[in-house]
Formats: sequence, C-alpha cells, structure tokens
Amino acid sequence: MLADMINFVTEVDKLKTIERRTYVSNKSRRENSGEHSWHVCVMAMTLFEVYERNQETDLFTSIQMLLLHDIVEIDAGDTYAFDERGYEDKRKREELAADRIFGLLPEKTRDEYRSLWDEFEEGMTNEALYAGIIDHIQPLLLNVSTQGKSWMEHKIHAHQVLNRNAWIKEISPQIYAQINEWVEMGVENGWLMNK
Amino acid sequence: MLADMINFVTEVDKLKTIERRTYVSNKSRRENSGEHSWHVCVMAMTLFEVYERNQETDLFTSIQMLLLHDIVEIDAGDTYAFDERGYEDKRKREELAADRIFGLLPEKTRDEYRSLWDEFEEGMTNEALYAGIIDHIQPLLLNVSTQGKSWMEHKIHAHQVLNRNAWIKEISPQIYAQINEWVEMGVENGWLMNK
Repeated sequence: MLADMINFVTEVDKLKTIERRTYVSNKSRRENSGEHSWHVCVMAMTLFEVYERNQETDLFTSIQMLLLHDIVEIDAGDTYAFDERGYEDKRKREELAADRIFGLLPEKTRDEYRSLWDEFEEGMTNEALYAGIIDHIQPLLLNVSTQGKSWMEHKIHAHQVLNRNAWIKEISPQIYAQINEWVEMGVENGWLMNK
Repeated sequence: MLADMINFVTEVDKLKTIERRTYVSNKSRRENSGEHSWHVCVMAMTLFEVYERNQETDLFTSIQMLLLHDIVEIDAGDTYAFDERGYEDKRKREELAADRIFGLLPEKTRDEYRSLWDEFEEGMTNEALYAGIIDHIQPLLLNVSTQGKSWMEHKIHAHQVLNRNAWIKEISPQIYAQINEWVEMGVENGWLMNK
C-alpha cells in the first residue's frame, strides 16, 4: 500500500512543470500549477473568516479539494480561463487524467480523491463553492500585483472577468466587492480593455 | 480586515521565488518553497493512513502547519538541511520573518498562524511530528526520483541522511523503513557516499 502511495506522490510532482497564464508577483516567470495549488490553499485558510457561508462550510474539505484540483493537468494541461475552444473538451481530457492519476492510489484513497475532485468540478456544495471562489480570484490577485501582465498579453476585457465571476456575487457579496474593485483598478490603469 | 488579508496573501506569493537545493523530478530546475509546500500537503493527505499515530492526530492541523511552515523563508531564505552554519542563526532569522509577515494579518489570524508555526517548529505535538516527518521525507523522495541529483551535488553521506531522520524511527517505523530503503538505494547507485 505504501508503495502505491509513494508512486502517486512521485507522479504528482509533475504538476510543478505545468505552466499557467498568470505570472508570479515579481513577473520573472509564469506561475506553475503546483505553486498555484499551494497559494489557493493559503488564501482559502486566510479569507475563510470573511466567507459568508463559513458556518456551514468545512474548510478542510475545501482545502483538500484545492490541493487536488489541478492534478489532472499533468495529463490534460492547463486550460486558460478565457479559452473557449479549450473548454469544449476540457471535461473529457480531465476525466481521463483523473482515471489514470488517481488510479495509481490504493482503492480507498483513489475513491476518496476522485470524489473530492468530482465534487469540486460540480461546484454544488458549500465546500466546492468556496474552493471555486478562491480558485477564481487567485489569478485576479496576481494580475493586480503584476500590473495586469497576463490580462494585457491576452487583451482581456473587463466584461470577460466580470462574466466569469458573476456567480460569486450571490454567494459571497464581500469577495465579489473585492473582485469589482480589482476590475475597476484594471480598467483605470489600462490593464483591462473596456469598450 | 479583508484588505489586510489580501496584503498577506499577496506577500506570500514571494515564497514561489525561494529556491531549495532539491530538484523537481524532471531535473529541469530546483524546486521552490511554494510548490514544495503544496507537495508536502498532498503527501501528508496521502500517507496519513500509514502513520501509526493517525488516530491521535488531527490531519487538518498538520496540513495547516505545512501550508505555513516555509513562509518565513521569504525573509530568512531556505536553510539547507545539511548546512550546519546556516542552522546556527536559523531560528533568529526566522523569528524576525514570522513577526513581520504574520504581522500583516488581522490580529486573530496573525496569532493563530504564529501559534501553528511555533508548534511546528517545536515539534512536540502529534500534529507537528507528522508534519515534520513529511517535510523531512519529501526531499528524499525527490532525490530518489532525480537519481540523487542534489545529494551528489553536495556530496552527502548516507549517515548524514540517516542521522537527520533517526528521530522518525520511534514515531513511525513504517515511514522509517521507507527512508532506510531510499538510503540503501542511494548507496547502491552511488548517489550517497558511504565510507
């Protein structure tokens, strides 16, 4: 059993070589999905107190989801948030990846991780919603701390960012207010297009 | 309050630029402390079932410690496991870093994070011991998956690895057996010196 676990934790090291579109805050390079996964967990811990549904949400479950959420990218690659074509077959590519990678684990852990990943992807429970909110706002945080580097490279419009995050408004008005503030800052500084 | 939290989670992004001595598994570059922190959390989740004290250990606490344990390196830098001189003033450098970085947070969260970090550093509770074990074995895993790249660069001896991990034997015989297996593999393949 330990041998299978070790195989899995060795395999997931590859997530550190999957590149995202966002840049780390000193702009020296793009962020990878391994360090992104750490960053969202620290964000989830830290912002939990302002999350309006925190009484009904198990933070540990959200964090386990965030630790695992991108592992499928080892096979499926990172799909950019604003890549409409990439999103068409994203689910299929990622399901195959989940089968293979979680399949390295002993049965019990495999089923547990798969179920956490499915729950995150479905985004229906309070835990999955909170994890999803954090995963959505982390690239905004990095765009703001890099003067919109990734937004500008991809000529992103304010309405694209707002549309992608509109669902958050109802669930966490406080976090949504922060998103709005960042988008306004993006427009004012010319980091986001606004026509 | 949210503004202070955002300052903190923006600041910790810098951990992604702190380089460790170990290499990621494809050997393309050294690992950074941000992605390392993610990797140890996934390892802690995955190996928990084989941890002999798991009934008396709160896994979420161990994971919170692992998410935070290296943040002080933003100011204090990474101290290599086998750097005896670096260890002389490690504690002092890291305490100053903890004061500044956790000090960015609202008081309640600042105290909570500082107390998790202190508990990890002291290594007395079951949670801190488990987090410490995982933090100790992760670089061994990476050395084995990179054919001893970092061990060889620093001419590390088998006895150094065994001494550094001797305390684990009593706490987790199963994990210690894995360490022993890795060290034997290291010696057989000439990745570790053995005189």
